[in-house]
Amino acid sequence: MKQVTAAILVIGNEILSGRTQDANIQYIAAQLLKINIRTMEVRVVPDIEMEIIEAANHLRTRYDYLFTTGGIGATHDDITASSIAKALGRKIIRDPRAVAIMNQHYKGDPGEVRLRMADIPEGSILIDNPVSAAPGFQIENIFVLAGVPSIAKAMIDGILGRLEGGDPIYSETISAYIAENAIADELALLARKYGHLDIGSYPYFRLGKFGTALVVKGTDKPALDQLAEEIRQIIKSKGIDLLVEDQNIIC
Amino acid sequence: MKQVTAAILVIGNEILSGRTQDANIQYIAAQLLKINIRTMEVRVVPDIEMEIIEAANHLRTRYDYLFTTGGIGATHDDITASSIAKALGRKIIRDPRAVAIMNQHYKGDPGEVRLRMADIPEGSILIDNPVSAAPGFQIENIFVLAGVPSIAKAMIDGILGRLEGGDPIYSETISAYIAENAIADELALLARKYGHLDIGSYPYFRLGKFGTALVVKGTDKPALDQLAEEIRQIIKSKGIDLLVEDQNIIC
Repeated sequence: MKQVTAAILVIGNEILSGRTQDANIQYIAAQLLKINIRTMEVRVVPDIEMEIIEAANHLRTRYDYLFTTGGIGATHDDITASSIAKALGRKIIRDPRAVAIMNQHYKGDPGEVRLRMADIPEGSILIDNPVSAAPGFQIENIFVLAGVPSIAKAMIDGILGRLEGGDPIYSETISAYIAENAIADELALLARKYGHLDIGSYPYFRLGKFGTALVVKGTDKPALDQLAEEIRQIIKSKGIDLLVEDQNIIC
Repeated sequence: MKQVTAAILVIGNEILSGRTQDANIQYIAAQLLKINIRTMEVRVVPDIEMEIIEAANHLRTRYDYLFTTGGIGATHDDITASSIAKALGRKIIRDPRAVAIMNQHYKGDPGEVRLRMADIPEGSILIDNPVSAAPGFQIENIFVLAGVPSIAKAMIDGILGRLEGGDPIYSETISAYIAENAIADELALLARKYGHLDIGSYPYFRLGKFGTALVVKGTDKPALDQLAEEIRQIIKSKGIDLLVEDQNIIC
């Protein structure tokens, strides 16, 4: 069983001050999961070089992939590229391919300030930015994306194809108008029995009734089917109907 | 100058899988900032004991306050209370005050499963849950809140009064229809000149025009006023009008 893992590092004072609602974590995590890459950790750090370096070095060595968002514009608080270069002990160079892209987009006159966005770590692979030209970049296992959600989305969509995913992760959702508490004991036993599978319990309140969605997840499909069936039997044994389920979705 | 710092630890597989959009970070950070507490770091970790312990121990020792959200329900994947107890080397006890609250809410019959939510670290101070009774808790400098946004919101509102804030953080916003790039050089110089203040640059596209909002922030009010004035003069010197500003907001 091959598990591929990722972390997301969000760089930006505006998230930490509550000024801005992050809009990238959920999208990136969901896209990665589609190709069976599990996001194991997210960190949000301020625009402070030492904080970025420390977080990047921890996350890039611990997980297979690291995705950063934010801090790659042209102003003084955009220090992601230089911080990542320092984290890896690499030089920052003005990348000629990035310069060419900027020149083309700005009709030969991007201006010195915008050209700073072409200063990236030596040896990087560019990440296409179909929205506003200035590219992101990949260096080693770090993917440096823009923070603006429309650009971050386009960038992650563009690189999914070059990531190596793990074994398929299967998932089943079992939903019923049953209180979470009413099945907690049985779920605890099942969680121990199926230690290599993940059982998520998500209570809800709908149409005036309490219900629970149980999401089971894992790479071992036969065991997953068995676990889902055990859960269905437990709910039925309490005289409660199952709601329409999303079965066998690969998510 | 007294700076008070905080970190937020979000515990939950559902955020890391992209299933759920986090709705608590922004609210908590914004509320803390109102009493001059700066959120310096956010982490999101899965429902895995070792991960929670490691993150909690790092964050609680590095910052003045740590706020956790999620993982305090009654099911097998709710392991926040026991993990925090282990992080601090404390015993988990069935808290009689929490039991009393649950008994009252559930008319004397909360049931064993729900009562598990009364199992919290010895020595905790309870955090009121006006939504669904089961309390959060404070132990040392860690505040353990629910993950459900309506409950997390009520809990943070309820504890703000017992937190010690820092010196007031002042902020001014200067906004104009000017491209971020057009003032990047001057801002870089100002950022060096006013090293103890924070200059955030937020480009936008509105009414068919590009503009930039510059948010300056800090505890040194006279220096902040001076910095804001320098920025206004720079923009005016380029023949560009300032938009209506939010001046001297304490945020």
